[in-house]
Amino acid sequence: MPFLTEEFGNASSRHEYGSRARIAINAARERIAALVSVDPVQVIFTSGGTEANNMFFGGMAAYLRPSQVVISGIEHPCVSVPASKLVRQGWSLDNLNVTEDGEIRLTEISVDRFHLNGLVSVMLANNETGVIQPVREIARVVRKSGGWMHSDAVQALGKIKVDFEELGVHALSISAHKINGPKGIGALIIDKKLPIEPFINGGGHERGYRSGTESVASIVGFGVAAEEAQRNLDRYQSQVSPIRDKIESDLALIGATIFGKNVERLPNTTCFSIPDIHGETLVMELNKGGFAVASGAACSSHNAKASATLSAMNVSESLSLGAVRVSLGPHNSLDEASRFGIAVSQITDDLKNMAAVAISA
Amino acid sequence: MPFLTEEFGNASSRHEYGSRARIAINAARERIAALVSVDPVQVIFTSGGTEANNMFFGGMAAYLRPSQVVISGIEHPCVSVPASKLVRQGWSLDNLNVTEDGEIRLTEISVDRFHLNGLVSVMLANNETGVIQPVREIARVVRKSGGWMHSDAVQALGKIKVDFEELGVHALSISAHKINGPKGIGALIIDKKLPIEPFINGGGHERGYRSGTESVASIVGFGVAAEEAQRNLDRYQSQVSPIRDKIESDLALIGATIFGKNVERLPNTTCFSIPDIHGETLVMELNKGGFAVASGAACSSHNAKASATLSAMNVSESLSLGAVRVSLGPHNSLDEASRFGIAVSQITDDLKNMAAVAISA
Repeated sequence: MPFLTEEFGNASSRHEYGSRARIAINAARERIAALVSVDPVQVIFTSGGTEANNMFFGGMAAYLRPSQVVISGIEHPCVSVPASKLVRQGWSLDNLNVTEDGEIRLTEISVDRFHLNGLVSVMLANNETGVIQPVREIARVVRKSGGWMHSDAVQALGKIKVDFEELGVHALSISAHKINGPKGIGALIIDKKLPIEPFINGGGHERGYRSGTESVASIVGFGVAAEEAQRNLDRYQSQVSPIRDKIESDLALIGATIFGKNVERLPNTTCFSIPDIHGETLVMELNKGGFAVASGAACSSHNAKASATLSAMNVSESLSLGAVRVSLGPHNSLDEASRFGIAVSQITDDLKNMAAVAISA
Repeated sequence: MPFLTEEFGNASSRHEYGSRARIAINAARERIAALVSVDPVQVIFTSGGTEANNMFFGGMAAYLRPSQVVISGIEHPCVSVPASKLVRQGWSLDNLNVTEDGEIRLTEISVDRFHLNGLVSVMLANNETGVIQPVREIARVVRKSGGWMHSDAVQALGKIKVDFEELGVHALSISAHKINGPKGIGALIIDKKLPIEPFINGGGHERGYRSGTESVASIVGFGVAAEEAQRNLDRYQSQVSPIRDKIESDLALIGATIFGKNVERLPNTTCFSIPDIHGETLVMELNKGGFAVASGAACSSHNAKASATLSAMNVSESLSLGAVRVSLGPHNSLDEASRFGIAVSQITDDLKNMAAVAISA
């Protein structure tokens, strides 16, 4: 809050206001570094996860000769679009398939699949289903091939432990607002030896990696959120996951399909679909009842298109259009979970009755 | 403030929190559009002026075949670096020179200087000297040549009238923090028919022009700042410019050189140098006295290098290293101006005496 009011210094200015802003930014950098177990110098602030992902592809492609890009079939558009745009610059593009449970098939991963100096990007947890991907295993193989491994950890951060070294990646994207921090701030975490050029060029901020006057208040907020995320991490497993399980068992009783049910997922995410019930409609009705949930991926709520993730999982279009995502946090209770189940059941009955009336009329 | 606390909705979500965020963003967009006299659809939010400038070059180059880039010799690095990086992609680079007063020579501007589908970028007012550039005149010629004209108006916005149509440019970069808004938010204002591709790709926010979860609170703050800037605009001429004049007449008495003294400048900016006094030292001493001023350009305060703008104006290196920039606002008073003059005079005397003692010792 002070950095939005009396502390208006530009962190790159030499006067005293500037120094205080600089100190605050570095304290935030340390907190974020601690959350992903890296040195503070490895944290490059960006305007969010989307820019961090674009920076990986743009910054690496500016440095390397065209080679191969490999992404999974369930990446967010802010990975898949920049990746596919590299094709124009002479890069080849390859996709990793997922199983019907939304997990990358490890049988597709072998040293000869990846090229020297190729770019590989696999998200740590899917933003729609919450399914956790075998990033560590893939990174090990990519390194053997002489490729560069990136992971979009935006959705996973704060819900499960995210350890940069343990994952063995060269770069990792994270975002503040997914851990209750401010919107419009994120970071690309980089290996100290990553041959990456800046994506946004200019005054040489962030040790030259990312120019632009630092968004001081947002960075400070990101730091506070990171510290809180670290503190809350265990609660996701111990406290949030039972609430998720309660919701899923209620949903199963009313015939819902839970996507990724059989594989490892984030402890707070449920993506489900009820046959013959449109996701958008269910979201609107739940909203009236006080439940803020999303249909498909929040970022593509503008599009009524079926989710690319669910398509990649071979989910039928009709079931896919019914997809609703529930994201929980430590502020949620088992009691809310019960009320949610009752609300979904009630809305489903009402909608089915309306449809029956419409058909018989 | 509410958008940092209880109003935490994602503007792209369908639930009620999301809708309120969307409405707030559009209200801000209207205020910003009004400040530069455009339609709200022409305002594309970015993470700041730096990204907006990078977006112009990156987004146009992604659409067009390599042609020519022309910039002035006094552009900010966030224009000159992306412009010069296009050379690798086959673009030719050409520089417009400035006079000793820091103004682009109109004699250099002719239709045959610019190529078809070339990119031309000239800042509206220089960030160090405040000198206003003949953007309107250049834009008229560039249009005749079939080129695309961009202007970095970050420094000018809020200090002088900035009218997109009147300037005749195709794209214009602005930033919130230069008009007392939050850091980390800006916009690229674009002509409705500009053939530009997105620079940051992903979920398709900002009508596809710029992806990434909207920085709701910062955008709302930018809107409020824009409205206030509009209200304060006249005060810069009527109230701030006499304060600036007072400072400059005091500085002249102590032998300071005022850069760009003879040409049209922003009403709030003074860039000066006192022979044999190092800018950094003067800034530090003034800081102790409670005056927050900058040496050279704020964004490059990390570098002790001489300013590129002053070099382009043929200022000697020793005088250039003495450069100090004073930026004023409607909150400043004539009384402060007097005290500033006295402080500079005092510090200058002290430093000269110290130097004399050192030499005679």
